[in-house]
Amino acid sequence: MALNSADSAFVERLRAILPDAAFAADPAGFLIEPRGRWTGQGVVVSPSSVEEVSAILAACFEASVPVVPYSGGTGLVGGQVVEDGPVPVVLSLARMNKVRAVYPDENVIEVDAGVILQDVQLAAAQAGRLFPLSLASEGSARIGGLLATNAGGLNVIRYGNARAQCLGVEAVLADGAIWNGMSRLRKDNTGYDLRDLLIGSEGSLGVITGASLRLMPHPAEEATAMFVVPSPAAAVWLLGLAGERLGETISAFELIHRQGLDFLEEVEIDHKRPFKDTPEWSVLMKVGLPAGQSPQEALEALFEATDGLVTDGVIAQSGQQADALWDIRESIPEANKQVGSISSHDISVPISCVPAFIEQAPAILAEIGNFRINCFGHLGDGNLHYNVFPPMGRDRAEFTDQRDAIKTAVHDLAHSFGGSVSAEHGIGRLKVKDLETYGDPAKLAMMRAIKDALDPRGIMNPGAVLRAK
Amino acid sequence: MALNSADSAFVERLRAILPDAAFAADPAGFLIEPRGRWTGQGVVVSPSSVEEVSAILAACFEASVPVVPYSGGTGLVGGQVVEDGPVPVVLSLARMNKVRAVYPDENVIEVDAGVILQDVQLAAAQAGRLFPLSLASEGSARIGGLLATNAGGLNVIRYGNARAQCLGVEAVLADGAIWNGMSRLRKDNTGYDLRDLLIGSEGSLGVITGASLRLMPHPAEEATAMFVVPSPAAAVWLLGLAGERLGETISAFELIHRQGLDFLEEVEIDHKRPFKDTPEWSVLMKVGLPAGQSPQEALEALFEATDGLVTDGVIAQSGQQADALWDIRESIPEANKQVGSISSHDISVPISCVPAFIEQAPAILAEIGNFRINCFGHLGDGNLHYNVFPPMGRDRAEFTDQRDAIKTAVHDLAHSFGGSVSAEHGIGRLKVKDLETYGDPAKLAMMRAIKDALDPRGIMNPGAVLRAK
Repeated sequence: MALNSADSAFVERLRAILPDAAFAADPAGFLIEPRGRWTGQGVVVSPSSVEEVSAILAACFEASVPVVPYSGGTGLVGGQVVEDGPVPVVLSLARMNKVRAVYPDENVIEVDAGVILQDVQLAAAQAGRLFPLSLASEGSARIGGLLATNAGGLNVIRYGNARAQCLGVEAVLADGAIWNGMSRLRKDNTGYDLRDLLIGSEGSLGVITGASLRLMPHPAEEATAMFVVPSPAAAVWLLGLAGERLGETISAFELIHRQGLDFLEEVEIDHKRPFKDTPEWSVLMKVGLPAGQSPQEALEALFEATDGLVTDGVIAQSGQQADALWDIRESIPEANKQVGSISSHDISVPISCVPAFIEQAPAILAEIGNFRINCFGHLGDGNLHYNVFPPMGRDRAEFTDQRDAIKTAVHDLAHSFGGSVSAEHGIGRLKVKDLETYGDPAKLAMMRAIKDALDPRGIMNPGAVLRAK
Repeated sequence: MALNSADSAFVERLRAILPDAAFAADPAGFLIEPRGRWTGQGVVVSPSSVEEVSAILAACFEASVPVVPYSGGTGLVGGQVVEDGPVPVVLSLARMNKVRAVYPDENVIEVDAGVILQDVQLAAAQAGRLFPLSLASEGSARIGGLLATNAGGLNVIRYGNARAQCLGVEAVLADGAIWNGMSRLRKDNTGYDLRDLLIGSEGSLGVITGASLRLMPHPAEEATAMFVVPSPAAAVWLLGLAGERLGETISAFELIHRQGLDFLEEVEIDHKRPFKDTPEWSVLMKVGLPAGQSPQEALEALFEATDGLVTDGVIAQSGQQADALWDIRESIPEANKQVGSISSHDISVPISCVPAFIEQAPAILAEIGNFRINCFGHLGDGNLHYNVFPPMGRDRAEFTDQRDAIKTAVHDLAHSFGGSVSAEHGIGRLKVKDLETYGDPAKLAMMRAIKDALDPRGIMNPGAVLRAK
């Protein structure tokens, strides 16, 4: 299906149906990927209402002009950037940034898709509730994009990913039709689950313009511990023990390798070292309990119950101490960035396969070259950020020609365990080929059939998730 | 699209590709709805493997013969029964009834779709884990159907519905293609969420043949209380207070009206009366806590904190006492059945709208006639079973001509609150018209487009969810 560029004549048509304010955004910020990897093209339009989004999509549909929905722009797989082909309309949700309503009694918040995650967290806190989605980009990521990519983050082990936080969406479909699915219902078995289909479809089936989100009670008592474990297998064992003792009250369970801590030293990121000797493997975990109970005591009891398998540990005795521990975890991505990875991976495997994956991967990579590996992440979800770096003192630019071999080796290994080559970040444009390589053929055929059915002219974020036809 | 009956020539073709055992089932049990409301037609086939299911569907696709997937047969909206039109193949999953694997370390169980829910619960318990899906028909309902209808039940407030228990499915699509989506991953953002699309599609898009299910740690300490409240509004207030104090440890929160308790006396179902005077409104709740904590004390403290708003209460001091309280709740559907409702409804509204719904509905129904109402159910999910009965001593057969008016009044009222006319039971064939009446037009158009894309010949459970073309 031939698509047409958003040329000046088309822009004139948009100007005729939209207020000037919709064209006021400085386009530059919308056309560069946050890490500068890709530079896009497009006509940036910022509607202020679902009706304006509908009018834009109807016009694009009629003229077969591609549309790239743009939320916070923090995605890491190029879903928000089109480098070539017909010039798209870049549809920014930034002006649709209102909290529509808060219902503390029923633990629900209704928001425009353009609200920044941190603002949702704040509105929830002001109502005495918790919006549990939390990730590094929460100061700029917007709800629409977080839902479109089914974002994960630190608290998935307890609360699930973005999809699990969403009760309903309002969306505009390829032809401009508005679907009002802003449900506050906990149960509704009337027809196909289109909410979960749009969530995670990365703007390739429609544009999410609003969402009703599930709030949670804020755990009254929280505590954080960092435990030293002898191996990834011991970390998985500790996860099992913690699950049996603490049930669903584990809010986060992160694996940290010494490479990440060494990187903090190497790039001189200020942090408080929790142990005199940097441990090879450690676990950072958070527990949240109802009022009147002591999560510190629960963590101490857990430590005792490990019967020496956990060789050392610190349990934060104040919010400040807990923050210092979490600062370490949250500084690792920045340290990675400064060191400069050759290839980064966002894989998941069944939790019990994590130790075997971590054992086998370095040997396979050693056949390609001499690398440093920083393996860390959301062990509670079987999700590892497995990042490969040049040896000390060398630059990643020297290893460009090995990047594909590294990536293929890591992805092949994850796939051999029944794992995923994109646990959190989605497909975007970067991983379209990976999806074709590793995806189940029947699944890919279903995806293509659904794409063609809901977006018959192929205007919705063409080239993202599925190859443009 | 014209469909063809599974005539003798077609059955011969099936016999040529399937072992005799696939035709051994006594068809009678598969063609009558459990309450005897509808009598179906069809050729019953019971495959024993996903490959056999694939062969059957490929043959049906080729010959445009309709297929009705049949699981436990316990559905309440006629999704499993076709009364007229071309004679379908009734595809029973009963012989695919093996637990494939249990992974206690990662809280996962993999099962055939034909495994009975109780057997999954047992296998989980044997591994020291909990499979939390629990409902009245658990002794005969099978996993495939529970997923196909996204079943709910008693523990949704804590654990979510069937969809939330499922990590992955294996399914056969309309043309016989096998999708192996039996994932044990907690996070996988590679492509559209087809799992959640098949879940709840009631066999109209494909047949689920296997599932990997999420297990949970079993709460070490559980307790049950029955609290007397002055009104539904007080019950909602109590739910909020309990949520703030007990967080996600509330496993069930049920509303009970005196009509249900009176029905138990009326039809002489043996039960232990918890209060001397039958309360107008009461709440039955369960709390489950990690080891070393006392849920009884937590419930006592909750009672104290209500400061007299909860006027009376019993907190079970033993498992036996708790069972006796839950027996009351679980006997109410049987009592309803014996009294004989004129019209039963499975509605949900936003939780804060429950009191207004319960206040307004009787006045509207009083304009139609003189009825008894038993309103009870899953208040924690905003899901009420709102059942309308004849006055004492009269038979429901006398009120047949008022059934539609009653149903429309209840559904219109729920819809006016943004509610659902099928919170738990799905659409089946009974509520196709309701979905057309109350469903969002853009949603209905999307559903039709997806149905046509994934089932182009319309063979999958035709007439269920969407009108047959």
